[in-house]
Amino acid sequence: MKALVYNGPGHISWDEVPDPVIRHTTDAIVRVDTTTICGTDLHILKGDVPAVQKGRILGHEGVGTIIELGSSVSNFAVGDRVIISCIKSCGHCTNCRTGLYSHCLGDEGESGIGWIFGHLIDGTQAEYVRVPYADNSLYKLTANVSDDQGVMLSDILPTGFEIGVQAGHVTPGDVVAVIGAGPVGLASIATAGLYGAATIIAIDLDENRLNQARDFGATNIVVSGSPGWEAEVLALTDGAGVDVSIEAVGIPRTLTMALKLVRPGGRVANVGVHGQDVTLEMAELWIRNITISMGLVNANTTPMLLRLVAQGKIPADKLATHHFTFDQFLDAYDTFSRASETKALKVILSRTTNTGTAI
Amino acid sequence: MKALVYNGPGHISWDEVPDPVIRHTTDAIVRVDTTTICGTDLHILKGDVPAVQKGRILGHEGVGTIIELGSSVSNFAVGDRVIISCIKSCGHCTNCRTGLYSHCLGDEGESGIGWIFGHLIDGTQAEYVRVPYADNSLYKLTANVSDDQGVMLSDILPTGFEIGVQAGHVTPGDVVAVIGAGPVGLASIATAGLYGAATIIAIDLDENRLNQARDFGATNIVVSGSPGWEAEVLALTDGAGVDVSIEAVGIPRTLTMALKLVRPGGRVANVGVHGQDVTLEMAELWIRNITISMGLVNANTTPMLLRLVAQGKIPADKLATHHFTFDQFLDAYDTFSRASETKALKVILSRTTNTGTAI
Amino acid sequence: MKALVYNGPGHISWDEVPDPVIRHTTDAIVRVDTTTICGTDLHILKGDVPAVQKGRILGHEGVGTIIELGSSVSNFAVGDRVIISCIKSCGHCTNCRTGLYSHCLGDEGESGIGWIFGHLIDGTQAEYVRVPYADNSLYKLTANVSDDQGVMLSDILPTGFEIGVQAGHVTPGDVVAVIGAGPVGLASIATAGLYGAATIIAIDLDENRLNQARDFGATNIVVSGSPGWEAEVLALTDGAGVDVSIEAVGIPRTLTMALKLVRPGGRVANVGVHGQDVTLEMAELWIRNITISMGLVNANTTPMLLRLVAQGKIPADKLATHHFTFDQFLDAYDTFSRASETKALKVILSRTTNTGTAI
Amino acid sequence: MKALVYNGPGHISWDEVPDPVIRHTTDAIVRVDTTTICGTDLHILKGDVPAVQKGRILGHEGVGTIIELGSSVSNFAVGDRVIISCIKSCGHCTNCRTGLYSHCLGDEGESGIGWIFGHLIDGTQAEYVRVPYADNSLYKLTANVSDDQGVMLSDILPTGFEIGVQAGHVTPGDVVAVIGAGPVGLASIATAGLYGAATIIAIDLDENRLNQARDFGATNIVVSGSPGWEAEVLALTDGAGVDVSIEAVGIPRTLTMALKLVRPGGRVANVGVHGQDVTLEMAELWIRNITISMGLVNANTTPMLLRLVAQGKIPADKLATHHFTFDQFLDAYDTFSRASETKALKVILSRTTNTGTAI
Repeated sequence: MKALVYNGPGHISWDEVPDPVIRHTTDAIVRVDTTTICGTDLHILKGDVPAVQKGRILGHEGVGTIIELGSSVSNFAVGDRVIISCIKSCGHCTNCRTGLYSHCLGDEGESGIGWIFGHLIDGTQAEYVRVPYADNSLYKLTANVSDDQGVMLSDILPTGFEIGVQAGHVTPGDVVAVIGAGPVGLASIATAGLYGAATIIAIDLDENRLNQARDFGATNIVVSGSPGWEAEVLALTDGAGVDVSIEAVGIPRTLTMALKLVRPGGRVANVGVHGQDVTLEMAELWIRNITISMGLVNANTTPMLLRLVAQGKIPADKLATHHFTFDQFLDAYDTFSRASETKALKVILSRTTNTGTAI
Repeated sequence: MKALVYNGPGHISWDEVPDPVIRHTTDAIVRVDTTTICGTDLHILKGDVPAVQKGRILGHEGVGTIIELGSSVSNFAVGDRVIISCIKSCGHCTNCRTGLYSHCLGDEGESGIGWIFGHLIDGTQAEYVRVPYADNSLYKLTANVSDDQGVMLSDILPTGFEIGVQAGHVTPGDVVAVIGAGPVGLASIATAGLYGAATIIAIDLDENRLNQARDFGATNIVVSGSPGWEAEVLALTDGAGVDVSIEAVGIPRTLTMALKLVRPGGRVANVGVHGQDVTLEMAELWIRNITISMGLVNANTTPMLLRLVAQGKIPADKLATHHFTFDQFLDAYDTFSRASETKALKVILSRTTNTGTAI
Repeated sequence: MKALVYNGPGHISWDEVPDPVIRHTTDAIVRVDTTTICGTDLHILKGDVPAVQKGRILGHEGVGTIIELGSSVSNFAVGDRVIISCIKSCGHCTNCRTGLYSHCLGDEGESGIGWIFGHLIDGTQAEYVRVPYADNSLYKLTANVSDDQGVMLSDILPTGFEIGVQAGHVTPGDVVAVIGAGPVGLASIATAGLYGAATIIAIDLDENRLNQARDFGATNIVVSGSPGWEAEVLALTDGAGVDVSIEAVGIPRTLTMALKLVRPGGRVANVGVHGQDVTLEMAELWIRNITISMGLVNANTTPMLLRLVAQGKIPADKLATHHFTFDQFLDAYDTFSRASETKALKVILSRTTNTGTAI
Repeated sequence: MKALVYNGPGHISWDEVPDPVIRHTTDAIVRVDTTTICGTDLHILKGDVPAVQKGRILGHEGVGTIIELGSSVSNFAVGDRVIISCIKSCGHCTNCRTGLYSHCLGDEGESGIGWIFGHLIDGTQAEYVRVPYADNSLYKLTANVSDDQGVMLSDILPTGFEIGVQAGHVTPGDVVAVIGAGPVGLASIATAGLYGAATIIAIDLDENRLNQARDFGATNIVVSGSPGWEAEVLALTDGAGVDVSIEAVGIPRTLTMALKLVRPGGRVANVGVHGQDVTLEMAELWIRNITISMGLVNANTTPMLLRLVAQGKIPADKLATHHFTFDQFLDAYDTFSRASETKALKVILSRTTNTGTAI
C-alpha cells in the first residue's frame, strides 16, 4: 500500500510500504477512506517529538471501512464504516477502567499512553491501518454522517470538548473565554453550549479566524492585543472575570492571559500543546481559588458527540476547509502548515475524490 | 483595651487602644479568650502584605465570648462562646451564595475579600474584636471543645481540609503526598482520611516534624532530599505516582515537587502561600491530565470539622504546642518565628491562664 | 390596599386589607406590578393545604418595585424593580448555607420552610407585599426583561430547571422524557438544553400542549396512551430507555410511567406536587440502578436563569398566555382553573394594564 | 468435577458434573478454593428467581486459582490467585464504558446483565468455574490477603460500599443510619468512614447483630421497634433527620423507615433486594428534597477495597463466622438459612480445609 512516511525532521514522503496485518486477536485492519493532518503532525515533522522514529507512518485521525477483524473483536463486522479514534483503549487496564483512555497502559507492543497512532505505531495517513483494541478504539458511523464530519470526531471535537469544556467545568450561565480560534479552539466554542455557556468569547490575533468563530457559536469576539481588549472581555462579565478560560494555543503568553482573565473561583482549561516552560505568578494566583487543568483527550465522549453531529447540533463539517486526494499529501501538508495564509482549518484527504457530503 | 498593633515592617507592640464598637446591625463584639499566630502574620510583620496599614491590630484566629450584638444578628446571644472564623461572609453576595466565602464581596467597609481580620480591619490579637456579619462568621462552641481545639478551627484545619483535601479531590483508596509537615500540612494529613485516603505520605526536610506527622495520621514519612527519596514515594504507589499531592509550603521547589510526584490523571492541591513566581514545565505537563488547584479557605466546613473535633476524630489539640498569656505576646511571636528551633506548631495565647483542657 | 384573600375552601375575594409594614431590619416592602397564579394556589383553594389559614393573602410569584427597606438590607435601593422569589432564604441557617433554600429554617415568624408567601405569611397576589430577608429573596430586574418574563423566574422556571433538569442530572447527549407539558414541564423542556440534552421528548395526553412544547425546545412529542406510545419513546433511545425522565404532573400513573421509561443507570426527577401514595414495583426496580429525586425549588438558579432570559435564550414570555388586571382576579382564577379548555399556561395579573412587553 | 446444582425450588445437591471449558478467547477457567453463600442464593432456592433454570450450578462469589486462560486474556497468568467478581464486565459495551458493569450488555452467551454466575451461566459453588471476560472480571489477590477476606470482595463489600455508601453520597461529617445489620448492612457500616461519616447508626431488630455492628464501625446502635427508637435516632442528629439512610433489608417496612428518618435534602440508598411493592407517601415526600437510589453492584471498587483490606482498614474477615468444606455444602446452606439462630454472617466453603488465615 501507499502511506505517508516520516523520514526524520523535515522529511516526509508518500511511499509504497507493506500492508498492515492483524497481530492480536483484538486488532482490526481498516481501509482508510478519509484522514486529516493535525498540528501535532507538524510538530513531529519539525523533530519536536523524539519518540517518533524514522519510517513511522504518521496520522492519528481517520474514517474508514473495516476489511479484517481479529478473532475476539465483537462489536464490529467487516464492511463497517468507522471512525478511528486518536486514542486506543485496551478496556482493562487501571486507567481505562476509570475512563482515562489517554493514559491507557495497554499490553505488549501497544503500551504506555493512549495516543500511539503515528507516534509509537503506524498511523492513519495511509491506505490501510492496523487498529489495536478495535472494540474500544473504533466507533461505527451512521449513514447520515459524512466522512468530513466523522474525521473531526477522531480527535479535534473530543479534545475541544473534554479538555476544554469538561475539564473547565463549564456550567449553565457561564461566561467562557476561548483563547485561540484555531480548529481545537473552535471545537471548544462549538461544544461549550452543551453545558449551557451563556457567553462564549473568542479571542485571537487573527480577525479572519474570529469571524469564523461566530459560525461555531461564539457570542462575542475580541482581538487580543488591540487597545483595551482586556477591558472589553471584562465588560462581558460582572467585572470579576470570566468563569472559565480555555487556552487553545500552547504558548506561555496565552496561558498567562487565560489566568489573568479568570475570576476568583474560576477555572482555566489548558488545551494547547506546549513546548516551553510557563511562569506562574503564584504570589498573585495562590489566593484566587482557581483551578488549572491540562491533558490529552480520552475520546470517551466520541460516541455522544457523534450523535450530536448526526443531529446537526455541532457544525463539524465547517471545520473542513480544504480537500485533497491521497496522492496530494505533500500539498495538503503545505496548505495546512501555512494556515494563517491559506485560511485552512482542517485539510481533508480522501482515498479517491474530494467529498464533503454524506455517502 | 490592649491589642497587638502593627507599626510597620518589623514593629509590633502590645498597646492600649480604643475598644471596638458595633458599626452595623450585623456586627458582634467578642471578648477574645484565646488566639494564636499564623504564618501569614509573620509575612505581614516582614512587610510582605502592603494592604496592612500601620496601626492595624493583627490576628485572624480566635475563640471568645460574645459581649454585644447588632440588632439583626439572630443566631447568637450575648454570653455565647464562639469560634471566630478567619473569613467573614456577608451571606448575600454572589460569591457567598455559591459558598465562595473566601471572596465575599461584602458591603461598605468590609469589602473585597473574605479575609479581613488583621488585614483590612482590626483583628483578633486583642482583648476584644468587632466581628462583621456575625451570623455567618461565628460558630458556637460546645462545652466539650476546648479553646485550644476551637482556635484550630478558625483557619488551620479548614484550610488544610478545604484547600488541600477537598480541592485535591481525595477519594477512597488514594495515595496522598503532603509536602510540608507544618501546621497546615498536618491539618491536611489529619483530614485526608475523611475522604478515605489509604496512604498518606508526609514529606519534609525536618525529621522531627515528620515524626509528629504520624500522630496526625501519616501512614508513611519521607525525608525530602534524602538519597532515593523520590523512588521511596513512588514505591508506595503502583509506580505511576501519587493520586493527589498537596503542597503545604509555598515555595517554587515544593510546588515543582508536587507536580513531579503526581500520576497521570492526578491532582495537585496548592495550599502554601507563595511570594515568588513558579516555573511550570508545560512541555512535560500538558499531556499528563493533571489539575492544579489553589486558593484561600472558605471556612464553610468549620461547623462540620467542629463536630468531628468534638467527637475526638481530629486531634486538633496536638497542634497547640506552646502556651502564653496575652501579656507575653512578643515572646509568643518570637517562639513561633523560630519554629524549627522551638519545635512550635501553633502557639496559643490566652486571656489569663495557659489552658490546654476543656472548660 | 387590595389583595386576594383566602376565606376557606372554595372562597377567595379581592378585598381591602391593611398595608404591609416592615417587621425586621432585613425586610422590604414591594409594590406588586405583576403576579400570576400557580397550580399550588388551586390546591390551596380546594383546602388541600391546611397550613393556609383563613384571611391569608395568596400568591408566591411576582415582579414589583421596592418602596421601603429595612435598615440592614444592603443589596437593594427603593425604586429597584425586582423579582420576588417564591422561596425566602435567611442566608445564615444550616440549610441556606448549603444552598438548600427550600428548607430555610429562618428566624422567628418566618420559619420552617423556604416557601412561606401565600402559605405561612401573606403573599404576592396583592398591591403590596412584605418580603423577609430581602437581600436573599429578591433579584434585581434589568430593563430589558419584561414583567411577563420576570414573573416566570419567581417559581416556574427555576422549578423546572432545578428539580427537573439539575436533580435529574441531565448530561450532554442525553435523551430526556418530560411527562406533562404544563407550565412546569415546559420549563424543564426549555432548560434541558442547558446541560446538552440531545433529544427532549414531551409526553402528554393533550395534543395542543404537545404542539406548544415544540416552541419550548421539545425535539419529539408523544401522546401518552396512544397505541404503541411506549414503543415510540423507546425508538428514540438505543432501546434501553431514556436517560432521564422528568415527572411534571404529580399523580401515581405519571410517576410510574417515568420509572418504566428510564434505562438502567438512569434518573427519574419528580417535579410534580403529589397528593396521593404511589406504589413502587421494587421487585422490578431494585436491580435497575436508578435514582429518584423530588423536592421543592431552592430558586438559587434564578439569577443565572434571569441572565439567559435577558439574552433571549429561554422563551419565558411564551408561558404568558392570558393577561388580566388586578380587578379581574376572580376571572383570572377561573381561566387558569379551566386550563385544558382555555389553553392557559400562565395567567398574568398586572397592576393597571395588560403588558407583555418590556417596560 | 463436583458442584452445587439447583434442581428446582427447594432442591439442591452436591453432584458430579462435567468440567467447564474455555468457550471464548476472553475466558478463564478457575479452580475454586473458597466460596460462600449469598442471601440471593436462598431466594433462588425458594424459586423466586425464575431465570435460574434446573441444572444450573449456583454461586457468584469466590476466590480461586487460574488453571487455564483464553488466548486474548492479558492481565493474568495460569497459577494466579484471584477474586472472582460477582459481576462480569465485557469492557466494551455502552454500559461497561461508563462503569455500569452491573448492566454489562456482554456478547453472545453472556448477555443482558452483569450478574450471570449462578444465574444465567454456571457459578462458583463448584470445584471449577468458567469466568467470561477474565481481564475485567477477576482481581489478582496479594499474598497478604486470606481467602476469607478475598471472598468478601466478590460481592458483599463492594455492594455495601457502592450501593449504600457511594450511591447514598455519604460526605464528611454525615450522620448515617444503616437499617439492617446483616452482612451487606455491615459492609456499608464498615465502609461509610471512607467518606468521613461521623455518626454511623446501626438499626436492627436483633440485638446480637447490633452488638456485632460495633466491631464494623457503628458508633451507635438502636433496636428498631423498641419504645422511642425513632426519637433515639433523631437525638443523634440536629433534630432534622439523618443525612443518609441506607436500607439493607429489602422489605417495605424498612424502606419506609429509611424515608422517614432522613432529613430534608438527604439521601436514601436502597441496598436490599426486594420482592414486593413498596408504597411511597408522595404527598409527604415530594417536598422534602430527597433522593432515593437503588441498584445492583458494579464491583468496580473491588480493587480499591482490596487494597484497604490488605492494609487492615476494613475488617473483612470478621464477616466469616462459619467454615465448611465443599462436601459439607448442604450443611452450610442449612446454617446460613437459619442465620438468626446460628448467628451466621457469611458461611465459608473451602476446597479442603477450613482456613481463616492468610496463605
